[in-house]
Amino acid sequence: MNFESVFPVWDKLTKAQQERINHTRIEKHFPKGTIIHNGDADCTGLLLINSGQLRAYINSEEGRQVTLYRLFDRDICLFSAPCMLHSIQFEVTIEAEKDTTLWIIPPDVYKSIMEDSAPLANYTNELMASRFSDVMWLIEQIMWKNMDARLAGFLLDESSIEDTNELKITHEVIANHLGTHREVITRMLRYLQNEGIVKLSRGTITILHKEKLISLQDK
Amino acid sequence: MNFESVFPVWDKLTKAQQERINHTRIEKHFPKGTIIHNGDADCTGLLLINSGQLRAYINSEEGRQVTLYRLFDRDICLFSAPCMLHSIQFEVTIEAEKDTTLWIIPPDVYKSIMEDSAPLANYTNELMASRFSDVMWLIEQIMWKNMDARLAGFLLDESSIEDTNELKITHEVIANHLGTHREVITRMLRYLQNEGIVKLSRGTITILHKEKLISLQDK
Repeated sequence: MNFESVFPVWDKLTKAQQERINHTRIEKHFPKGTIIHNGDADCTGLLLINSGQLRAYINSEEGRQVTLYRLFDRDICLFSAPCMLHSIQFEVTIEAEKDTTLWIIPPDVYKSIMEDSAPLANYTNELMASRFSDVMWLIEQIMWKNMDARLAGFLLDESSIEDTNELKITHEVIANHLGTHREVITRMLRYLQNEGIVKLSRGTITILHKEKLISLQDK
Repeated sequence: MNFESVFPVWDKLTKAQQERINHTRIEKHFPKGTIIHNGDADCTGLLLINSGQLRAYINSEEGRQVTLYRLFDRDICLFSAPCMLHSIQFEVTIEAEKDTTLWIIPPDVYKSIMEDSAPLANYTNELMASRFSDVMWLIEQIMWKNMDARLAGFLLDESSIEDTNELKITHEVIANHLGTHREVITRMLRYLQNEGIVKLSRGTITILHKEKLISLQDK
């Protein structure tokens, strides 16, 4: 994809602003599994995904994780540039969930253009509201749903993202998405297998009965 | 307080924008306990608190609640105007926790000024990032903390907000802040009383041992 056709408010920037972004942005490839941004580390910059998949998550002191949201082609990652807004008082980690190619816009460049450009600032507002909605969805899940309903929802999401019923994913990875322990996931998956909803084999979870997963998710 | 001295980027608005806000804003008083904005209802507008205290919370289908954040003098409430950003895909309820006087700015007025004004759009970004930080703090609490640590933190917050060790608050209200059932809070408070950390009497919780509450909060 072409950067200028993907960047959301490109036509509303001035020629000088466009040139400044074009002269400072870099394109980079990250193999699956790379930690692209780590809460503790520097202000990486705005990430515009050309192709691939990113996962944003938080860590507990004991090393547990929970996924906040995932980003796909053409999505922009804002919280990899926490220095851009001084009110961002939290840390997220950004990981390449698949081989990912993206453009990085330096945080000071984005910030200074945003300060002058109402269109870019308004776009950034929409972007943040979008991530806010993801995180509010997560809070509702954590607060009001049981883990079995959340697991069912996660398997359905994975199946939709990967466009297959045969999910290549470990119990450990699922636990890290949902913020729980591997043993909890293993126990629940075995229960789902006993009910004939999934089939487990080495490194693979096959969804046998999507409708039952959906009703479990909604319960 | 005077509206113009409290509104955050007043000096960076044009004369016309200032006049538009001044001609459309209304000042209103809400007695303690009033639901000012309800997720399902209309787009109330931006709320700028003159004096008082607001609570933003979400509801479960079964009527449980959890507090997202609280707002105080000079704070601006953004999510009472969800129509302003189409990416806001969640519903919050806003309640006056104390007698509150505030200014309401119509959402269409704020939105149309924000679309032209980089300063107002950038300010709105900081505002949203601030609420985002509140909500991320909540996620970390829910995910990684036990309810007794959260209760300790809540009692300490209340004591600091009200500037007293004698909290006039019911177990039911605490449960609605923390997203749990009254019985859970009652059981934990009795435990704290047995440990000599608080003293319970009708409608009042007295903090006897702040240091022990702090160490419980941090555990």
